[in-house]
Amino acid sequence: MRRLLDSEPAARYRGLPLVVACSGGPDSLALAAATTHFARHRNVPVHGVVVDHGLQPGSDRVASDAAAQLTGLGCVEVDVARVEPDGVGGAEAAARRARYEALRLRRPEGSPVLLGHTLDDQAETVLLGLGRGSGARSLAGMRPLDGPWARPFLGVTRRTTEQACEELGLRPWRDPHNTDPAFTRVRLRAEVLPLLEEVLQGGVAEALSRTAVQLREDADALDAVAAGIRERVADSRALDARSLAEHPPALRRRVLRDWLSGQGVPELSDAHLRAADALVGDWRGQGGHALPGNFALVRRRGTLLVECGGRGTEQRSSDG
Amino acid sequence: MRRLLDSEPAARYRGLPLVVACSGGPDSLALAAATTHFARHRNVPVHGVVVDHGLQPGSDRVASDAAAQLTGLGCVEVDVARVEPDGVGGAEAAARRARYEALRLRRPEGSPVLLGHTLDDQAETVLLGLGRGSGARSLAGMRPLDGPWARPFLGVTRRTTEQACEELGLRPWRDPHNTDPAFTRVRLRAEVLPLLEEVLQGGVAEALSRTAVQLREDADALDAVAAGIRERVADSRALDARSLAEHPPALRRRVLRDWLSGQGVPELSDAHLRAADALVGDWRGQGGHALPGNFALVRRRGTLLVECGGRGTEQRSSDG
Repeated sequence: MRRLLDSEPAARYRGLPLVVACSGGPDSLALAAATTHFARHRNVPVHGVVVDHGLQPGSDRVASDAAAQLTGLGCVEVDVARVEPDGVGGAEAAARRARYEALRLRRPEGSPVLLGHTLDDQAETVLLGLGRGSGARSLAGMRPLDGPWARPFLGVTRRTTEQACEELGLRPWRDPHNTDPAFTRVRLRAEVLPLLEEVLQGGVAEALSRTAVQLREDADALDAVAAGIRERVADSRALDARSLAEHPPALRRRVLRDWLSGQGVPELSDAHLRAADALVGDWRGQGGHALPGNFALVRRRGTLLVECGGRGTEQRSSDG
Repeated sequence: MRRLLDSEPAARYRGLPLVVACSGGPDSLALAAATTHFARHRNVPVHGVVVDHGLQPGSDRVASDAAAQLTGLGCVEVDVARVEPDGVGGAEAAARRARYEALRLRRPEGSPVLLGHTLDDQAETVLLGLGRGSGARSLAGMRPLDGPWARPFLGVTRRTTEQACEELGLRPWRDPHNTDPAFTRVRLRAEVLPLLEEVLQGGVAEALSRTAVQLREDADALDAVAAGIRERVADSRALDARSLAEHPPALRRRVLRDWLSGQGVPELSDAHLRAADALVGDWRGQGGHALPGNFALVRRRGTLLVECGGRGTEQRSSDG
């Protein structure tokens, strides 16, 4: 808690009220307890927000019980936010969207919103990303600090939050969704991770969480280096393929991805990016490469240009 | 096969005899078949090497049966190499060491040695690395081309190699070790991966293998950028901490790791590297940081120096 909120990147939140998002579960109740403890010494008010998704019978009682506990812990203001997820993109995704939206609306101007995600949640997120196989970003998990969202418990196990609730005499709610095998995340938690822990002889959740930190920092570094390269080799219209070719493929693809996205090309798959990069790193005079959104990437005299569908040539000549 | 052996990085092997390492299992038998097929069109001789580890009763018969099949497939020379693993570091590791050593000794000068590792082996390797949690390198799996070793089947599933053997009328050997749950890798293959495939709805082995490729390219790019930075900020004695501080943490740590290793400091854990990096990225006048091997890293007037145990100051002054 202290390490995150007293860190350099969190400096802009210093002295502002803290918002704790609480489901009533052990992780967010323990988070509320740690936050009020932390804030008491700094004379900072803590606001509690309980989101009632209305998805289960009795969710209003769960919410009001959580709210009462937040008041008991010393939150100066406690809101119960009743939301109505629209179901778009699946129940889980819709609930998440509605929850984040409600929290965003209720936070005092400039305040961070503290979320109770634990080391175990992070490990599950990394495994989910692994299944997508889309590289470092999808394995990088959740950020400890991201926009108004702060996750001080990413290094704390779920078990520790449960012990804390017990020791503090709190009454955490057991969400039946957390044991429903219809959810992929629940099966990762209840079946895959315990098996992995057994086969690899322990330490897997911690290893996944360390991996997330390292891969996120790697991805940040690569993005920063790629942004610098992009500035030197490309402008809004053209990219100098010969200069870009001097860089390693992982950087070339990042430069291409960002430059193409800046030209309005829809987000590219890894396969598309590799094919586009062949015009840079494996140039054998090939004509060009079709991109999603009726765009094409072409190379002329060492320069890459984005063209629109069949009208590419005219477009280009009208550009000068 | 063609994609790997005709690629630019494999150019140095062009025209040389190819060595296929064969255990008699379906993957390496299928590899031998693909290799002799590939080589026939190029008039390149293929040497087969079967390593007999002597670890199981009847291993000599397995080896001679594999050798006979290699001759049948068109290998111009077939060796059975009987090795005696010393057992140091565990049976698996010792067998691997003895095997690689025997292959190295038997390859004609300059030739590549083709290994039958499949996409499934790669997925298992990535999962093993995940359990270590030591970042991109440990998730990057096996390289398709690495020193004399070439792995043309890293994109081919084990199932495909089995089908190939069946279609070609080959008689692959079933190594009982491959189903012995005493081996971590066997449990990953037989228990963890099938469960992950089920929970994440398929495509996991392919996703892990894609992840390996991407993370390896990321790691290569970061190493290349870090090497460039190191050249600008450090010499064999001192490192300019102020200049290094301008770079992202993931690059700073790589520069520090390589520079410290060049000074004879034993390999550092991630925790050690982060502590060392605090002298660069989080400098608050702290004295120094103890390193393994009785070394210490100290910062003086914006410069990092490695000192030896208690005698650091004298050492330094004698250096000038």
